[in-house]
Amino acid sequence: MNVLVIGANGQIGERLVRQLQESKKHNPIAMIRKEEQLAKFKEQGVQTALVDLEGNIEDIVNIVKSADAVVFTAGSGGHTGPDKTMLIDLDGAIKSMKAAQQAGVKRFIMVSGIGVHRWHDTNRLDWMDSSPVYSAAKYYADAWLERSDLDYTIIRPGKLNNNNRTGKVTVADNLPHKQISREDVASAIITSLENNETIGKSFDMINGETLILEALKKL
Amino acid sequence: MNVLVIGANGQIGERLVRQLQESKKHNPIAMIRKEEQLAKFKEQGVQTALVDLEGNIEDIVNIVKSADAVVFTAGSGGHTGPDKTMLIDLDGAIKSMKAAQQAGVKRFIMVSGIGVHRWHDTNRLDWMDSSPVYSAAKYYADAWLERSDLDYTIIRPGKLNNNNRTGKVTVADNLPHKQISREDVASAIITSLENNETIGKSFDMINGETLILEALKKL
Repeated sequence: MNVLVIGANGQIGERLVRQLQESKKHNPIAMIRKEEQLAKFKEQGVQTALVDLEGNIEDIVNIVKSADAVVFTAGSGGHTGPDKTMLIDLDGAIKSMKAAQQAGVKRFIMVSGIGVHRWHDTNRLDWMDSSPVYSAAKYYADAWLERSDLDYTIIRPGKLNNNNRTGKVTVADNLPHKQISREDVASAIITSLENNETIGKSFDMINGETLILEALKKL
Repeated sequence: MNVLVIGANGQIGERLVRQLQESKKHNPIAMIRKEEQLAKFKEQGVQTALVDLEGNIEDIVNIVKSADAVVFTAGSGGHTGPDKTMLIDLDGAIKSMKAAQQAGVKRFIMVSGIGVHRWHDTNRLDWMDSSPVYSAAKYYADAWLERSDLDYTIIRPGKLNNNNRTGKVTVADNLPHKQISREDVASAIITSLENNETIGKSFDMINGETLILEALKKL
């Protein structure tokens, strides 16, 4: 499968690109924003695309056309301001969805955040109170995707860490704000791509005791 | 008609409250955020509600219940940052829509901005290039409303000025970025409330040569 990874230079993105390449079954296309990020991927023999999510949808459409599936794992990150949260995490995400629709690519995986579907609930997770702008951005991006005609899977991982891959997770509608490794998030994305039972599913995910494939098949 | 004006202390909001009161046909309920804004409305004999759009939806539901229609004309304004654009112009707007739905109040008028429905188009109006965060916020709020089951009208006024009411406008899907007085915007809101033909309509609006009622009936 040709998988367009939007946000390939991010911490989940770079792991996903590597795992896709190692799988031998898939071909990652690393979509990145800055020219200086190109070299790293080219050295790894990874196909790249230089596209700015703040630009036109047409620029995204052009590269989505060469993919069978899209993974959105771009994030403006903690070092930029709330303007970029609006323009990347929300608007960039929805422009990517529109691009996929225009390109006729149905499969779309969104990397979201644990509990963001409960952003408007009084019993939402505590972390959202200190990140309201980010929470709202992810909430509306996910809501748009769920209302679209795309074959979506929305993965809402918990607190991210850089531990090794365990291959084991817990998935559910609502989970406590516990940890998960970025390596396992990347693995769960690939397992989702390979299992169409995950289409139309949105779920929280933390590290746990169940093998990823088994956990996702039970959703 | 009992009309909840969300953002009553704003420049369109205060004009709308006054015009509703002068109409003798309607009863404005001024929803405001700050306690110090209360006195002004109380002196005018206007019913008030102190509700923070960054708070819980339930707080909005409670006051919407006493209204027959909701007008959203709140805006974080130019003196705050993009965090408030997300939390007021986008999230506050959609929380107000959800509150109206929960309260069973169907009629919802949105004050938007000229051309924001073309935010993702390459031929969009120039003003959006210098206000991308605001443009995106209004675009997604309007899109949510159009996809809702509310009886909406979305008014997208041009460049706002403080001129007197002319009572004459031009309305259309796409208009150039020309001026309109806030008094005329307030009048068009009331005319929309009084004419159910405007339900399900979204339009740009600038000052023009056609009486407001006539212009809106032609939509």
